[in-house]
Amino acid sequence: MTSSSENPNPELRKDAVWNRWVIFSPARAKRPSDFKSKSPTDPNPNQQCPFCIGHEHECAPEIFRVPPRDLDWKIRVIQNLYPALSRTLPEPQHAPSGLLQTGFGFHDVVIETPVHSVQLSDLPPPEIGRVFITYTERIQQLASHKSIQYVQVFKNHGASAGASMSHSHSQMMALPIVPATVSARLASMKDHFDQTGKCFICEIQREDLLIDSSTNFFSLVPFAATFPFEIWIVPRYHSAHFHELDVEKAVELGGLLKLMLRKMSLQLNNPPFNYMIHTSPLHSNGSELAYTHWFIQIVPQLIGIAGFELGTGCYINPVFPEDAAKVLREVKVPE
Amino acid sequence: MTSSSENPNPELRKDAVWNRWVIFSPARAKRPSDFKSKSPTDPNPNQQCPFCIGHEHECAPEIFRVPPRDLDWKIRVIQNLYPALSRTLPEPQHAPSGLLQTGFGFHDVVIETPVHSVQLSDLPPPEIGRVFITYTERIQQLASHKSIQYVQVFKNHGASAGASMSHSHSQMMALPIVPATVSARLASMKDHFDQTGKCFICEIQREDLLIDSSTNFFSLVPFAATFPFEIWIVPRYHSAHFHELDVEKAVELGGLLKLMLRKMSLQLNNPPFNYMIHTSPLHSNGSELAYTHWFIQIVPQLIGIAGFELGTGCYINPVFPEDAAKVLREVKVPE
Repeated sequence: MTSSSENPNPELRKDAVWNRWVIFSPARAKRPSDFKSKSPTDPNPNQQCPFCIGHEHECAPEIFRVPPRDLDWKIRVIQNLYPALSRTLPEPQHAPSGLLQTGFGFHDVVIETPVHSVQLSDLPPPEIGRVFITYTERIQQLASHKSIQYVQVFKNHGASAGASMSHSHSQMMALPIVPATVSARLASMKDHFDQTGKCFICEIQREDLLIDSSTNFFSLVPFAATFPFEIWIVPRYHSAHFHELDVEKAVELGGLLKLMLRKMSLQLNNPPFNYMIHTSPLHSNGSELAYTHWFIQIVPQLIGIAGFELGTGCYINPVFPEDAAKVLREVKVPE
Repeated sequence: MTSSSENPNPELRKDAVWNRWVIFSPARAKRPSDFKSKSPTDPNPNQQCPFCIGHEHECAPEIFRVPPRDLDWKIRVIQNLYPALSRTLPEPQHAPSGLLQTGFGFHDVVIETPVHSVQLSDLPPPEIGRVFITYTERIQQLASHKSIQYVQVFKNHGASAGASMSHSHSQMMALPIVPATVSARLASMKDHFDQTGKCFICEIQREDLLIDSSTNFFSLVPFAATFPFEIWIVPRYHSAHFHELDVEKAVELGGLLKLMLRKMSLQLNNPPFNYMIHTSPLHSNGSELAYTHWFIQIVPQLIGIAGFELGTGCYINPVFPEDAAKVLREVKVPE
């Protein structure tokens, strides 16, 4: 098999992190640089909404704000007004043994800025870093609940990526179970560690897939990216738990996330997107900590999911990762 | 835990077929009977298109038609004009051992009717049965390729469910790998069989989840349905491979599929939908045959997928399966 630019034949690649095959099928007639979002994010006029400063009383209860007790807050962590899980149910005393578990859990919203017209990528790196630190502080609170096994941090940006509010925010869901994708990742990373003695993610960097890098982090398009122009931001140092991030690294991570979001927006016509922080279960044992390694997955929404993907869990990606990485590497971001 | 109608608390249920948790969260203020599609399928005017009879020359090459060599055909199996896999690449001689496999495979289209304005659910049961038999005949042809490990039959109906053509059709993708969702299902069904000596699907029927039934088939909403108003059609008899369906049973299955599609359309405002036939890998060994059992999964497109689902593989379903089954059981279908 030769490289994708010389050879437009389809190819299957196995994503070693989740142990699933992806079909790369560039035959559908577009060059990688021609991909543009057809449903760019809604313009975000300077209107007011419940997430705006001064409208706190229109929201579900606050959990904490940054800075604490400051009327002039920068970030608020609040309850989701329509939570998928309930924090008022009795907390289960045991991990589920059968096919049922009570819907106890937490579904929080992180309002990333008091200002309606500001998007996350508009903030300077220290302020994006503060959003990351806010995630870590809330995860540490949630970890005090013994029944909470996993916390998924995610952001939906744009209506067709699932955002019901345009004011910049992200969400945190604290679950009383370990979800399927996480179990699959742990099993796959354990296999790799058992065979090689190494953490797979520690060695994931590859020159042709690299986009950008900083002292402690790098961004790449993964070898078997599920979606076109999917981006991962990975710490160079081994770390199982995102919530151990310190302030200095959070600011650096904020800079790299900002750069990736700006490049994605410039190249792909301001697409709706999701990002997900993939971390380890809260109560991981020592051996799990050795082979899991947190990272951020950013997915611009460019293609839909249909019967084939629903049926097989196998995705069709029309852009080879090397090509996507090259395009993103070369995007010029204005100062 | 009490039944959903008495208690609107969220609940987690594990889907035993794919071994993944689903969150049932009815708190979002709608009654089950209030769910309606907001993007009903495009009207399908009586225009002509490449799939219409008389336009065969505008299509990619035909594989076969029903009846054979008849100008007045009822069904055509053709190559996809934009195949995700390539039938002209050299066929791989071995199952993949690493992270790469050549993109050899087949991506076919089944044109279900010569007439543009006719949808699958408009056809009488014997003609829907003929579509099923056409699938089985094509699968048997594909099975002669030793490298083909799995054939996914699926239908995308409506633009937002992934259909690029409005003329009624389905698709078949023959893969040189076993996809992730199939592997997960096989592993889960094997565990159940090892523990109980029984096929899980053989015992899946439950009165409160049943929608309708016929001699050899029944339809139900699964206990841990991933999507609201998801429907499964299951053979009562144990059978690992869909492609062993005979003509008589195919007609009966056609009748039950027709009823389900009509009920779904009446109740949910003609939603876009997908169906997927979940069968066993082509070259299953004897023990696999004992614990796998094919079925059809029908998914009306009522909710979107966002960062939480992408990150966790855990879906949030706002309708309890017992409630969806009751609603669908009671839909009155005009004669």
